[in-house]
Amino acid sequence: MGARPLIIDCDPGQDDAIALLMAIASAEEFELLGITAVAGNVPLAKTEANARRVRDLAGRPELPVYAGCPRPMVRAPVTAEAVHGPSGIDGADLPEPSRPAEETHAVDFLVQAHAEASRPVTLATLGPLTNVALAIIKNPSILDNVAEIVAMGGAIGLGNVIPAAEFNIYADPHAAHVVFEAGVPLTMVGLDVTRQAIATPARIEAIRSLETTPARAVCGMLEYYGARTTAAYRHGPPLHDPCVIAYLLKPELFEWRDMHVAIELAGEHSLGRTVCDVYGRSGAPNARVLEHVDADGFFALLSERLARLPASAQ
Amino acid sequence: MGARPLIIDCDPGQDDAIALLMAIASAEEFELLGITAVAGNVPLAKTEANARRVRDLAGRPELPVYAGCPRPMVRAPVTAEAVHGPSGIDGADLPEPSRPAEETHAVDFLVQAHAEASRPVTLATLGPLTNVALAIIKNPSILDNVAEIVAMGGAIGLGNVIPAAEFNIYADPHAAHVVFEAGVPLTMVGLDVTRQAIATPARIEAIRSLETTPARAVCGMLEYYGARTTAAYRHGPPLHDPCVIAYLLKPELFEWRDMHVAIELAGEHSLGRTVCDVYGRSGAPNARVLEHVDADGFFALLSERLARLPASAQ
Amino acid sequence: MGARPLIIDCDPGQDDAIALLMAIASAEEFELLGITAVAGNVPLAKTEANARRVRDLAGRPELPVYAGCPRPMVRAPVTAEAVHGPSGIDGADLPEPSRPAEETHAVDFLVQAHAEASRPVTLATLGPLTNVALAIIKNPSILDNVAEIVAMGGAIGLGNVIPAAEFNIYADPHAAHVVFEAGVPLTMVGLDVTRQAIATPARIEAIRSLETTPARAVCGMLEYYGARTTAAYRHGPPLHDPCVIAYLLKPELFEWRDMHVAIELAGEHSLGRTVCDVYGRSGAPNARVLEHVDADGFFALLSERLARLPASAQ
Amino acid sequence: MGARPLIIDCDPGQDDAIALLMAIASAEEFELLGITAVAGNVPLAKTEANARRVRDLAGRPELPVYAGCPRPMVRAPVTAEAVHGPSGIDGADLPEPSRPAEETHAVDFLVQAHAEASRPVTLATLGPLTNVALAIIKNPSILDNVAEIVAMGGAIGLGNVIPAAEFNIYADPHAAHVVFEAGVPLTMVGLDVTRQAIATPARIEAIRSLETTPARAVCGMLEYYGARTTAAYRHGPPLHDPCVIAYLLKPELFEWRDMHVAIELAGEHSLGRTVCDVYGRSGAPNARVLEHVDADGFFALLSERLARLPASAQ
Repeated sequence: MGARPLIIDCDPGQDDAIALLMAIASAEEFELLGITAVAGNVPLAKTEANARRVRDLAGRPELPVYAGCPRPMVRAPVTAEAVHGPSGIDGADLPEPSRPAEETHAVDFLVQAHAEASRPVTLATLGPLTNVALAIIKNPSILDNVAEIVAMGGAIGLGNVIPAAEFNIYADPHAAHVVFEAGVPLTMVGLDVTRQAIATPARIEAIRSLETTPARAVCGMLEYYGARTTAAYRHGPPLHDPCVIAYLLKPELFEWRDMHVAIELAGEHSLGRTVCDVYGRSGAPNARVLEHVDADGFFALLSERLARLPASAQ
Repeated sequence: MGARPLIIDCDPGQDDAIALLMAIASAEEFELLGITAVAGNVPLAKTEANARRVRDLAGRPELPVYAGCPRPMVRAPVTAEAVHGPSGIDGADLPEPSRPAEETHAVDFLVQAHAEASRPVTLATLGPLTNVALAIIKNPSILDNVAEIVAMGGAIGLGNVIPAAEFNIYADPHAAHVVFEAGVPLTMVGLDVTRQAIATPARIEAIRSLETTPARAVCGMLEYYGARTTAAYRHGPPLHDPCVIAYLLKPELFEWRDMHVAIELAGEHSLGRTVCDVYGRSGAPNARVLEHVDADGFFALLSERLARLPASAQ
Repeated sequence: MGARPLIIDCDPGQDDAIALLMAIASAEEFELLGITAVAGNVPLAKTEANARRVRDLAGRPELPVYAGCPRPMVRAPVTAEAVHGPSGIDGADLPEPSRPAEETHAVDFLVQAHAEASRPVTLATLGPLTNVALAIIKNPSILDNVAEIVAMGGAIGLGNVIPAAEFNIYADPHAAHVVFEAGVPLTMVGLDVTRQAIATPARIEAIRSLETTPARAVCGMLEYYGARTTAAYRHGPPLHDPCVIAYLLKPELFEWRDMHVAIELAGEHSLGRTVCDVYGRSGAPNARVLEHVDADGFFALLSERLARLPASAQ
Repeated sequence: MGARPLIIDCDPGQDDAIALLMAIASAEEFELLGITAVAGNVPLAKTEANARRVRDLAGRPELPVYAGCPRPMVRAPVTAEAVHGPSGIDGADLPEPSRPAEETHAVDFLVQAHAEASRPVTLATLGPLTNVALAIIKNPSILDNVAEIVAMGGAIGLGNVIPAAEFNIYADPHAAHVVFEAGVPLTMVGLDVTRQAIATPARIEAIRSLETTPARAVCGMLEYYGARTTAAYRHGPPLHDPCVIAYLLKPELFEWRDMHVAIELAGEHSLGRTVCDVYGRSGAPNARVLEHVDADGFFALLSERLARLPASAQ
């Protein structure tokens, strides 16, 4: 059936960057229609520039990058420079992007791409869901042409940014609510599973041994990001966003359950919590929630895909 | 300085229709850039068609009407057919619109119009604030080119759709939050003042005596709408939305106070309440809140403007 | 049928003090079983001592006063010294109480009094509802022996301590919820009506002309309290709590509607709001809500009752 | 230093019953001042009668049992007959209690016991915290004489009654808030640890081999309760409440961390969640949160204590 049409919405972020590399390296599986950027780990101006740096690093400077919403729907903005560094992808040491972002706004691109696509489009979302939610609110009919949404975000168990919530959902819980209630096939790639995808020193060395420019950038990012997350992750940093791409490439690496997931929009201490009905009491499932990953298989896939990228950056 | 550039965002609705007629009749004061429609009193397909019917009634079939968001940002949709009738403008008895809506989405038009305007644009909003909020979230820079927003919605005192809240704010409280926190000059035209603009039988007769097609449509709508609101308004229906246009034309008809207005987004019984800090305790004012109208002056202005419209519908 | 058994729960407070004087002076109508004090306008140690000072002033030092809860059920304590002065009854200039409070806790007294009463007991509540709510939670069976509860608190319209809420409800909204949901006849004496009972200079002079010690204390309190509330009340201070006693003595001075009143326990800006369903849409009424008072009649009653007290304090 | 003064507040419940047996069997360690019952797993009339049945079973019919609050503080009552059976201790097959409950209310007993104790009192709470919270609200000074509170309730991770919350906290979250904010040493014995104390068939057989009446009752209860919880616990039912007694007897069986625990009182899906700040970001710890138990050691302790009880019921 050929490569599936894919749009990646992201806020790079080191793990977004690695996910982008993995996706760009998978041309057989993905027809990458475009990359949309959103404010998240760092402000929009940086996430969209980082997305462009990463496409250059992957040897695909012609891939269109669209800048999207510079703020969440309702809540005050939060960012995560403490984890990702002031640039968002510190450690990668990448040059300025080769060319600018597209003039079209990411939300408009999302609407157009769905309207024009001959086959339903898959959305891989790696950041706060602001862009996707706005496209849905503005033009709900695009949902008819969504194949599925695979979203990094949330947790059955503990969050990260606050005990109750994971960063991407916490950063725009109202957008997450819109997406989770949209009625399209949705896979939640939450902390429960991404915390199993740990970049241990041995796994980082395996990547480094590829001896390519992209592999070196990945290792640099993992070292920077890992050094800032040792309090929570003793054995190495978790590769949140790449799990989304790995799931799309090889779902057999993962285990999951279907369940209803509600986004908590109120609550003094619980804003942005993904309330996962593991007991099956609150109605029909609206999400496939990943719970387990074969971490070795995941890192083997990552190395294999990185090896496909051009050895030297553009 | 010439006519001020104006966009009217609306969800007709009988009172929206009358407000539109009043604005279209005021070419000296307003350069009407366009009319944007939003889901509210009735679904979007009806509000945008009604907006087109009303421009035809006013003899301005060339005025562009843009359809906007068919749903609120976060909450489930609410409509008000019980008050406005199945069409939204029952009682007006208007023919099918002469031509279709523009292809551009209302949110896109709002963004473009502000980007292209040589002078700051005034926004008169007569319905839920979904379109305006989405434009702000998507492109916050448009705020630099907003002259002011005059919004029908909210109440210092009692609401209408629920005791705590007025319909337009209740129908999309998150959008209202975005607009009220946007940092631009904002005037809240709430129930406190619009409930003083009562279309008594004598005032309706004064309009009828104009003996024009638009005047007859206005009287028909007021009779229909009045018959459905007698429980709350014994002396006649309140003209909520036209107060926005009247304020823009003759602010001297109104009295107001500047205060901070917060939109209640939580609460079991208070969703969508405009919490008006009449005591000046919760920080800098973000809104001018109208409190009193010279009702006779208002209706004199309404009749005067209606009289300017072509006597026969197109 | 003789005097009705009455318990007054209060947090004096100048207006509580005046209400107590009014009730003590009405021996024909009320069999005053006891006075219970609660933390509110000032901390408990002061409110209960003030209650004892006032019974002495009224020439009834034998009346039992019971100290109750020193804190609200759930929320952090709030007090109102800015309005009432550090003592709570500044301006009254009363001597130390003649004898101590009873050893029994107010909540225990409430339970016992209802258990032992041969006829159902009326509760007049003038402060936060903590004591009454705790008695209900601990021993719900007392509700079988409650004749009615007449509570000063809440508002259909604007609050006072915050725009959304009146002080007594705001100070312990959870207690108010318990009482309003208790299923007994309940009259809400809210700001809508108490703001009509304004102690104008002429009305204060009418009291002063009684030339008794209690009348002098009342005038002193009204002047102190009035001076601290001029921003909100230009013509004189409102007599909130005495309206409860006046309603019990002469309900014909008041107008009301029965409606459902919900207490808002959530909400970012609305905690403690009495959401009054004036439109009759949210289920069966649980409260009689006073809306209008014959203010002249009210002050005539107040003067008449104060005149019955002994001219000299004990 | 002798046995520590102890009060057990409970809502039997099979696991409460086993905890009571364990505590009564530990006369060397505990001076059991009294047992207080609260509405929880089943209504109050049943929980207090069950407490009396269990003291009889333990051969201590003279132990005082006090009936407490028949309802939660604020929320609507919830019970758990689906798990515990209509009696609350189905499977135990116990005769009617030998004598009635004390006349004193549990809240009054809690206040008196603390006031009169020569040494600070330890509170073991096995149900909703209504009784304890009311005692604190009514008489905060009792906190000066609390040695510590060890409370079964809450979870760092998933709840049971809803995904977000554990039953005891969910059943009266406001009471839990009062207790967790009381400023006394508090140990939270939550689902994270109690789910490790699984009564496997082998462990049940070990108890049965004691061949005493109490052991038979325990096995009967575990089989009943186990049969109703197989969906959640495949290997046998968790012994929630006995973990509290085991912790008091042998804290070395447990591992824990100190952290801040907030009770979520708002939220559409999160009411009653114990938001555990495992990351140490939200201020000083207010609770010791148990995280691990040596399950074999726990069941060895349970069998050892049950073996101390009289072989035949009274």
